[in-house]
Amino acid sequence: MRRRELAGIGLAALGGWALRPVVAAARRGPTTPTDATSDRRGRDLLVDGQRLNDRLRHLASFSSAESGTTRLAYSDEDLAARAWLTDRLEEAGATVSVDRGANLLGRLAGSDPSRPPLLIGSHIDSVPAGGSYDGQVGTMAALEAVTAIADAGLATRHPIEFVVWANEEGGKTGSRAFAGEVWAFELDIVTASGYRIDEGTRRLGGDLSDLAAARRDSGTIAAYLELHVEQGFVLDRAGIDIGVVEGIVGIKRWTATVDGFANHAGTTPMDQRQDAMVAAARIIDIVHRIARETPGRQVATVGRLAAEPGAPNVIPGRVTFSLEIRDLEMSKIDDVFEEIRRAAERVAGEAETRVGFEQFYESRAAPTDPRLRDLIEGEAARLDHASLRMPSGAGHDAQSVALLAPVGMIFVPSRDGISHSPLEFTEPEDVTAGANVLLRTLLALDELDL
Amino acid sequence: MRRRELAGIGLAALGGWALRPVVAAARRGPTTPTDATSDRRGRDLLVDGQRLNDRLRHLASFSSAESGTTRLAYSDEDLAARAWLTDRLEEAGATVSVDRGANLLGRLAGSDPSRPPLLIGSHIDSVPAGGSYDGQVGTMAALEAVTAIADAGLATRHPIEFVVWANEEGGKTGSRAFAGEVWAFELDIVTASGYRIDEGTRRLGGDLSDLAAARRDSGTIAAYLELHVEQGFVLDRAGIDIGVVEGIVGIKRWTATVDGFANHAGTTPMDQRQDAMVAAARIIDIVHRIARETPGRQVATVGRLAAEPGAPNVIPGRVTFSLEIRDLEMSKIDDVFEEIRRAAERVAGEAETRVGFEQFYESRAAPTDPRLRDLIEGEAARLDHASLRMPSGAGHDAQSVALLAPVGMIFVPSRDGISHSPLEFTEPEDVTAGANVLLRTLLALDELDL
Repeated sequence: MRRRELAGIGLAALGGWALRPVVAAARRGPTTPTDATSDRRGRDLLVDGQRLNDRLRHLASFSSAESGTTRLAYSDEDLAARAWLTDRLEEAGATVSVDRGANLLGRLAGSDPSRPPLLIGSHIDSVPAGGSYDGQVGTMAALEAVTAIADAGLATRHPIEFVVWANEEGGKTGSRAFAGEVWAFELDIVTASGYRIDEGTRRLGGDLSDLAAARRDSGTIAAYLELHVEQGFVLDRAGIDIGVVEGIVGIKRWTATVDGFANHAGTTPMDQRQDAMVAAARIIDIVHRIARETPGRQVATVGRLAAEPGAPNVIPGRVTFSLEIRDLEMSKIDDVFEEIRRAAERVAGEAETRVGFEQFYESRAAPTDPRLRDLIEGEAARLDHASLRMPSGAGHDAQSVALLAPVGMIFVPSRDGISHSPLEFTEPEDVTAGANVLLRTLLALDELDL
Repeated sequence: MRRRELAGIGLAALGGWALRPVVAAARRGPTTPTDATSDRRGRDLLVDGQRLNDRLRHLASFSSAESGTTRLAYSDEDLAARAWLTDRLEEAGATVSVDRGANLLGRLAGSDPSRPPLLIGSHIDSVPAGGSYDGQVGTMAALEAVTAIADAGLATRHPIEFVVWANEEGGKTGSRAFAGEVWAFELDIVTASGYRIDEGTRRLGGDLSDLAAARRDSGTIAAYLELHVEQGFVLDRAGIDIGVVEGIVGIKRWTATVDGFANHAGTTPMDQRQDAMVAAARIIDIVHRIARETPGRQVATVGRLAAEPGAPNVIPGRVTFSLEIRDLEMSKIDDVFEEIRRAAERVAGEAETRVGFEQFYESRAAPTDPRLRDLIEGEAARLDHASLRMPSGAGHDAQSVALLAPVGMIFVPSRDGISHSPLEFTEPEDVTAGANVLLRTLLALDELDL
């Protein structure tokens, strides 16, 4: 087991985050392994870390790029990697199938056929010029959990269903089809691979011509558990092994428009300008301050800005910029936005400009199930891994599945928080640690009557 | 004569500008018309305001656009307007020629052939979709001055040379060739008319194949006087008839680059961001505050900004923006820039980003001649016009000619400060007032041994 040093860049630097409870395993007496728990069937099972990391490296060979991984959804590389995964699942005795959304499924039977399956998995498609960890660590950890259970000859009460979701990076098509959230118009979207979504789905063995038939009913899944790399640097900087995801944040995005008056930059005195750029700049500063100073873990970002007419010698008459706010609670997003809007209107007025906001995107928050959080935290502690409860700022397939079943998510550290880049990296021992927590949580879940 | 009300939007609103002396003609006893001055030959001459404004309207008919004026340099409309002007000059007895820079010249002989000419004029080319006043008011006022002198049978001591500068809007080609400032590479630049500068120059009767031959020697011009619309709203808001231009401001432009660290807008907590956009926003606010709060009439503008990667869901890792500073003194520009640079570096550092500035443009300041300023101010007062000393924030042909001779500039009000737009407008009585000040100043200049 591994312990990171809590260096200068560690918890003290986490600001608001440091206020959250950090579970140091050794300090939690009640969840320390005891005979009472180790008695239970399979509950001391561990994954084969060597095999897991070897397979993770092998998976990276299905790539059209030399460095990192480019394995676009629906591409030949995606097909080849799925064929290889199919072989590994069949070796483990799983029954393999592809559903209408082109999700690759591998099922181990349970001892109680009346129970719905426990679902575990992630995705293997990457962004162009992406890394070899995003989605892939979680997929291989789930494969390893299935393999470890099969190798040990364990008979779980619930069936265990392994899943590779289709086209996560291009819009979570597989998991959204599974949850009945795909719209017909999306099928014509051309993905990064060059295939339309309907074509790509057929390439992988699916068929989205009947979207209703692609949907799973609520209650057909007992629970869903996904391991994923954090894609942020919170765990890495804090030296913590396991993130217990409290939910996937909701997102709202607006276009803000500041209207001033375009004028000659030479002939208009400073005190007679209606400078949309200056007003926008002050609003952007306020966005940052409000998001930072409001208690909580909301984030707000201005990622894009355009000035009109956009010449060095003209005072901008109009500036538009994007505003994005994320939080685990949609109501918190609305509250923060209202505070930003009020402050922005005041600042715009002071600069003799006007500001308006138009929302153009919303993604609802998806909280994880509190029982699953407790289980993950407890199993991490039993394995002597420090854990931290945290939101997921990025979107994941789990947020689709949350419409149908209780979900849980486990994060493992991303070195320097780098993601969607060939520089993406998670230490092999962190991969193993995460996979063990996944396996143990799965087995603990199996004991519950969900 | 016209008196504007000094309304609420008048001098009180001018801020720093209100600190400058406003010459109310009636209050200046010494320059009120007296027998001593009215004795002098031609010194009570006035232009024909009706003819002047009729001709200004007629000039506007040489346009390829229905509203305002589109008369691109070197275009057919430019050629046709010049032909019409040539006829008017010849009617007035002027000798018409076109120099190598394609400047249209009309000369009235002086009584003393040893004296260099007094040069008056402006330009008639417009920007695309421009107005009917920029350049054109000054050109027609100069034509009217020449015509009034000819009509009155006045013999000035100096030759009077009328000039229409070529391609002012496309880079002051004519006046810069006249001053020996055109670079060979410019000849290949394609102008808005579609003609290269060398082609366009030939279309108008010039020839820039020998740039040295296009240059006038220092001392071959006694003085240059130009009337122009202000292109700002200082005179209009203050209700003042005449601007006595103290000089054409110098300009420096930089590209500022703020380097932070691009990161996921969802997974990066607010207090761990190196957000180049937030740093840039704070710097832009500071640019405005420093330019506004520093005593003086400098202006500083951020007109253009680009964020990288520029997506709503990514914290910008790099932001570049333009910074322009103008002032009558180049050293003041440098001082203001230094203050901005220091503050920007501090702010960037506080946001864990870095900022650098790279200068990409410089236009030197061109002060007008103090004797000409005094003459303009005095003649405005004799005509009972309120005047205001002010910088020209925009560039003009006068700044080229300032390399060769003392220059003076007269501004007349632009309604609402609008320029480079079909909405550009100067009241006919303001046009006449300006032309009278131009004529009287020209005649006063003629009495000096420059």
